[in-house]
Amino acid sequence: MSDGTPRSRVLILGGGFGGIGAARKLRKAPVDVLLVDRHDYHTFQPLLYQVATDILAPETVGHPIRELVHAQDNLDFAQATVSGIDLDARTVTFEDWEPQTYDYLVVGLGARANFFGTTGAEEHAFPLYTLSHAIRLKEHLLRRFEAAAKDPSLAADGTLDVVVVGGGPTGVETAGALSELFYNVFPQDYPSLDLSAVSITLVEHGDRLLAMFDEGISAYTLETLTERNVTVRLGESVDEIAADHVTLGSGGTIPAGTTVWGAGLQPVPLSGDLGVELVRGRVPVTEHLHLEHHPEVFVVGDMALTTDSPSGDVLPQLGSVALQAGEHVGVTIDRMERRHKDPHPFHYVDKGTMATIGRRAAVAVVPPHHITLTGRAAWAMWGAVHLALLTGGDSRMAAMSNWFWSFTTHDRPSRVLVHPDDED
Amino acid sequence: MSDGTPRSRVLILGGGFGGIGAARKLRKAPVDVLLVDRHDYHTFQPLLYQVATDILAPETVGHPIRELVHAQDNLDFAQATVSGIDLDARTVTFEDWEPQTYDYLVVGLGARANFFGTTGAEEHAFPLYTLSHAIRLKEHLLRRFEAAAKDPSLAADGTLDVVVVGGGPTGVETAGALSELFYNVFPQDYPSLDLSAVSITLVEHGDRLLAMFDEGISAYTLETLTERNVTVRLGESVDEIAADHVTLGSGGTIPAGTTVWGAGLQPVPLSGDLGVELVRGRVPVTEHLHLEHHPEVFVVGDMALTTDSPSGDVLPQLGSVALQAGEHVGVTIDRMERRHKDPHPFHYVDKGTMATIGRRAAVAVVPPHHITLTGRAAWAMWGAVHLALLTGGDSRMAAMSNWFWSFTTHDRPSRVLVHPDDED
Repeated sequence: MSDGTPRSRVLILGGGFGGIGAARKLRKAPVDVLLVDRHDYHTFQPLLYQVATDILAPETVGHPIRELVHAQDNLDFAQATVSGIDLDARTVTFEDWEPQTYDYLVVGLGARANFFGTTGAEEHAFPLYTLSHAIRLKEHLLRRFEAAAKDPSLAADGTLDVVVVGGGPTGVETAGALSELFYNVFPQDYPSLDLSAVSITLVEHGDRLLAMFDEGISAYTLETLTERNVTVRLGESVDEIAADHVTLGSGGTIPAGTTVWGAGLQPVPLSGDLGVELVRGRVPVTEHLHLEHHPEVFVVGDMALTTDSPSGDVLPQLGSVALQAGEHVGVTIDRMERRHKDPHPFHYVDKGTMATIGRRAAVAVVPPHHITLTGRAAWAMWGAVHLALLTGGDSRMAAMSNWFWSFTTHDRPSRVLVHPDDED
Repeated sequence: MSDGTPRSRVLILGGGFGGIGAARKLRKAPVDVLLVDRHDYHTFQPLLYQVATDILAPETVGHPIRELVHAQDNLDFAQATVSGIDLDARTVTFEDWEPQTYDYLVVGLGARANFFGTTGAEEHAFPLYTLSHAIRLKEHLLRRFEAAAKDPSLAADGTLDVVVVGGGPTGVETAGALSELFYNVFPQDYPSLDLSAVSITLVEHGDRLLAMFDEGISAYTLETLTERNVTVRLGESVDEIAADHVTLGSGGTIPAGTTVWGAGLQPVPLSGDLGVELVRGRVPVTEHLHLEHHPEVFVVGDMALTTDSPSGDVLPQLGSVALQAGEHVGVTIDRMERRHKDPHPFHYVDKGTMATIGRRAAVAVVPPHHITLTGRAAWAMWGAVHLALLTGGDSRMAAMSNWFWSFTTHDRPSRVLVHPDDED
């Protein structure tokens, strides 16, 4: 393949759906690809709530990025943390590595939880955007229950109560999974606790849940969660989060030893290095997904304000959008390098949207005719699609085994607290 | 069952093999059992080296103690850390809980790594006695390799080299598993590193490996490890451990970015509360496994100097001894409470001893005729026995799936670094 010309160097920042999608599509391109992430694993974000509620072991949802290297000769990986991007010098600096130059840059560094300035949220709310978040939330929940087992008065005090903020997919899926954990799994683990006294409250600012779906689905979701002992507060906001309660916009308070935050994203600080004004906290890109004045710099995933062509619709911050955008960028670079062809504008193919509400209950909308499924059929479909999406064979197998056990036995894979930093 | 008399209270300290064995055998006894451990999981210690070398996910080896509560009505569990034992007041105090009284006490609090005063060992050696140790060692190894991937000069510097101290089962199994990881798995993960330059050295003070087996097994083990690129140094001691090397008793130094310590145990501080003089760092007990002057206080597992009846042999600190001793104590308490019968002295039944040296290589001695197996047959037997021993169905299934993948594909389940305390 070598004709003596040095190959272009593609630097991909971030091993999420966007970065991985780009890397894979560059497999046969005559370029050298360097993928960098501050972790050594790719996170399957749509299942984080399952780690947080102890359905899946963390290893199942975090897949080693290095495995990509096995199958792809032109790819190298480095675990490093980006500290700056210099577009003019075409150089990226790192906190823990020497600067790297590029011919093409693909930026997919994700986002951060946005607490919208809510008092106490930074200190007390549990966001659910990274694998570390999921583990932290799980360990917090388990610790609360172990404490209550030693002092059952805590259960009556509200220390076990949970408030989930945000009625989008993260909030709905988490609330549903918590209901499974609290009312189906924990009664066996903690026979001395009166778990029916423990409350789960889902607070949503808008007037319905899963607002991206149609109203029938919102109604089904509300009904299912309510049946499963989740109190849903619509049209309600959160004014303050404390260690043991949440204060609502309407003035009331709800006891809560745990507050889960599933309500919004904000840009990572590095977005500022890209030299463009953010729009709704996201980096605007062209129809080819690059920066307007830097055709060699692509931005994908939750960082980017990605629009569909030809519709012009702004696309939501979803894993499926990030993956397709990343793949599109990989194909674009390949076309430019190998075949010297012009790139296509990015068109997003909606392959369906789904959310689970717990065991044997889910909602799904399937294109092209927007067929709506609810209940067991949607749940089964959700399982099949997510198994197919998990990135590696072994994760898939472990996930299947975990799910099989969880959903057939009402039991969980782990439910243990292990800290590498325990004194022994 | 109740005849108005209050039931005796059995307090079990430690959820290891000893404590779990005792708890299970008390299932039908007319007593109230309270099992306390500072963790919420039971550790399957014989497989810790597999977690450290990334064959098994931590969840597989740490099993939720609370699941015992499901099947056993007279059992309660609390996660708490023992701070003191008052034999006269029959009371145990905790760092994080109110004092608890008992009629019978079963103490199985394990042991600690003994560095025998080796300079630098506390700071730099990695013991392998708890699940936290195993995770810490694994993360240290993965971090070293990620650092070398960014700066390949580190590989030549010896930062990837490992010294394993101790030629007993822990040292042999760890060295064998490291060889698998370094020479069969990592070449795919780190194609830019010259892994053949990375050394694994096993240092043993005595003149052969696995000294509890016969000499043929020791010779097979030495040959197999040597074939697998492990340098074995017999009759050698360790004088000093530093961050980047080990100094041997004979004066030479070996570069080592990682030193694994598998060489000995010392008593936990609480052993001093039991009012007896320790023998070889262990608590001496009667043939009924209780303290000489306290027939209501039993000591089991690595803490105890357990002897076999009628042979009088001192038994080794092994999981199988701890399990049988714990079960014996459970049966003893049951006999005393329910049937008012005298206890039997403890007799240990040797069900065989095994160690693996890596994929498809293991050694085993099978009673009653001390048949010796080596190679694939022993390896297959080792797998079957350990699967049967893993305490819960779901762990068993996950372990099978992990092993299946690891040993058929040369690949590993996770190889990821996740910290709940990462900033995000």
